[in-house]
Amino acid sequence: MTRREFIIRLAAAGLIPPALGESRAMEQRISVVTLGVDHLDRSRRFYVDGLGWTPGFENEEIIFFQSGGMVFALFLRDKLAEDFQGDSRGFGRAAMSLGHNVHEKSEVDRLMKRAGEAGAKILKPAEDKSWGGYSGYFADPDGFLWEVAWNPGWRLAADGSVTLR
Amino acid sequence: MTRREFIIRLAAAGLIPPALGESRAMEQRISVVTLGVDHLDRSRRFYVDGLGWTPGFENEEIIFFQSGGMVFALFLRDKLAEDFQGDSRGFGRAAMSLGHNVHEKSEVDRLMKRAGEAGAKILKPAEDKSWGGYSGYFADPDGFLWEVAWNPGWRLAADGSVTLR
Repeated sequence: MTRREFIIRLAAAGLIPPALGESRAMEQRISVVTLGVDHLDRSRRFYVDGLGWTPGFENEEIIFFQSGGMVFALFLRDKLAEDFQGDSRGFGRAAMSLGHNVHEKSEVDRLMKRAGEAGAKILKPAEDKSWGGYSGYFADPDGFLWEVAWNPGWRLAADGSVTLR
Repeated sequence: MTRREFIIRLAAAGLIPPALGESRAMEQRISVVTLGVDHLDRSRRFYVDGLGWTPGFENEEIIFFQSGGMVFALFLRDKLAEDFQGDSRGFGRAAMSLGHNVHEKSEVDRLMKRAGEAGAKILKPAEDKSWGGYSGYFADPDGFLWEVAWNPGWRLAADGSVTLR
């Protein structure tokens, strides 16, 4: 355990006040990515049956997937809007993409094909990129963008975690 | 190294064909979350100056942050659209939220306050939730939703990684 982890645990256990235990900054970490979807059964067919993912929890309004050290969630769009007291009619195409990095270049085409067979819309077939990698884009059934990428400039560990370098 | 990791490394090194090295499914992992933003300087003020995050790489069109075992990116919205050959005029409010889980309940209000001071719009002040936790929502300068949450039902490690249980 590093000194920082030790201090965080002390703070978490209420043994020292948070102000002493860590800076008042927000840790640069995303714990959960939640996509608001129209039909949970359609999303389930895509991610579970199509891509082969295994839910960690699901009920009639949400599905959670363990995804490395974070959680990926599919949540009914209306429920998401309700949760932050917004209006789901204000939703449009997200100016956002989710990247999925792979260990070798040939995996990109394989996964793009797999996604297409699962019902994804191929927005851009994979191509060599100016930054030295190879990537393509597909959209899931609700139009969310996924970029499947091979990036030799980043370190991709065997467990799938990525590190800038 | 687990057997699975060993096999993935063999496959990555081209020593065995991918079809033998792993299932043809897509790993359930997000490597990168990229938000398409209007003004990179405004986003930088919010995430770097406001929330206290440290870029791992930046240039005039993108900022990368190391975020646990993944990467969080802010990318000019037009460049993102160009990258998947879409039209940025089609973008709307994302039906998506990014969750940031904290170790203790009191941290939620502290971070919501911090985000507000950094210029976030508080969409919903934190409140006790039906699922046993405590959370609130804010929107970043481009309207992307962040939920700051304390969830005693999930395991949150000292390094910030979360596990469903």
